[in-house]
Amino acid sequence: MLYPNKIKKDNENPISYANRGMDLEYLINESNKYYLTNDIAIIYKKPTPVTITKVEYKNKVPKVTGLLEQKSTLDYVGLFKGKYIDFDAKVTHNKTAFPLSNIHPHQFKHIENVIKHGGISFILLEINKEIFLIQGEKLLEFKNNNSRKSIPIEDIKKYGYKIDYSINPIINYLEVIKKIYFKEGVL
Amino acid sequence: MLYPNKIKKDNENPISYANRGMDLEYLINESNKYYLTNDIAIIYKKPTPVTITKVEYKNKVPKVTGLLEQKSTLDYVGLFKGKYIDFDAKVTHNKTAFPLSNIHPHQFKHIENVIKHGGISFILLEINKEIFLIQGEKLLEFKNNNSRKSIPIEDIKKYGYKIDYSINPIINYLEVIKKIYFKEGVL
Repeated sequence: MLYPNKIKKDNENPISYANRGMDLEYLINESNKYYLTNDIAIIYKKPTPVTITKVEYKNKVPKVTGLLEQKSTLDYVGLFKGKYIDFDAKVTHNKTAFPLSNIHPHQFKHIENVIKHGGISFILLEINKEIFLIQGEKLLEFKNNNSRKSIPIEDIKKYGYKIDYSINPIINYLEVIKKIYFKEGVL
Repeated sequence: MLYPNKIKKDNENPISYANRGMDLEYLINESNKYYLTNDIAIIYKKPTPVTITKVEYKNKVPKVTGLLEQKSTLDYVGLFKGKYIDFDAKVTHNKTAFPLSNIHPHQFKHIENVIKHGGISFILLEINKEIFLIQGEKLLEFKNNNSRKSIPIEDIKKYGYKIDYSINPIINYLEVIKKIYFKEGVL
């Protein structure tokens, strides 16, 4: 808190978010707030259910520890232009590939289900400080090719859609969805 | 546990559920399991976020008390035949009318948003041991008519769709959705 003005200035520059360690989830939540406020889409993060397992007292204040239940679906759900949207945010520190073990088997099953029932499913992947949208259909293709345990960065760049940071919203992933699924604009 | 056979027999009869005090939420969850297992739809209850406020010890077992955060959306969300579904379960012990105060202002706003963006929104209402599906559009009409603080039972019967208990699923509300929004069959 020594340089409040400087901090404020940094906050106004969305380009610097990734470098300042703000996480992908925060950026997506901010983008979703923008979509909701501007009447573009209704997309929200599902709350995570917690099972309490441990309670510790620190200075007479009980600190509760819980067990995060494993998710059987994806983190975000919503509605955009009449379409059901269901996706997850994934971050890998691997710089050359995205290990498919980051997507649990029941999440793959959920992605498959969503697509089968006419919804749109994808992941927003942060790799090497860049963000890509990868369609569920493509993820399933990679998974079902048994020789692949991960998606190499070249394929992410080839089959994924890179999302550059912008001002409003910070991560405009719905722009990509519009182009892929609604054929608006050309990529 | 004195009469296990009798209990089992009762369980097999869905007609008796309401009388045995099984709540609407349970019946909806069971129906949703059926829809998922039979590949009809993907509909699930959103987890409720809990803020922990109190911890008590009973026989050395810590009992954790939390604060339920107020919901800004509805309880259930999902995908059916390519359509986004968003609804809530409401129970009133009033036998002659459904007080609209049971639906919070932000829930009304959410219903309005869902409809505006092309989704399907409604409530499943339990009143006087009967279950009715009432469309979001109709709820908004009642709410916007300022002289109305509640929907009288006559109007619930007139504008709502009664859902009888069935075997599989127990509450087949998607059958009503099919008829209203997909024009399949005639009511």
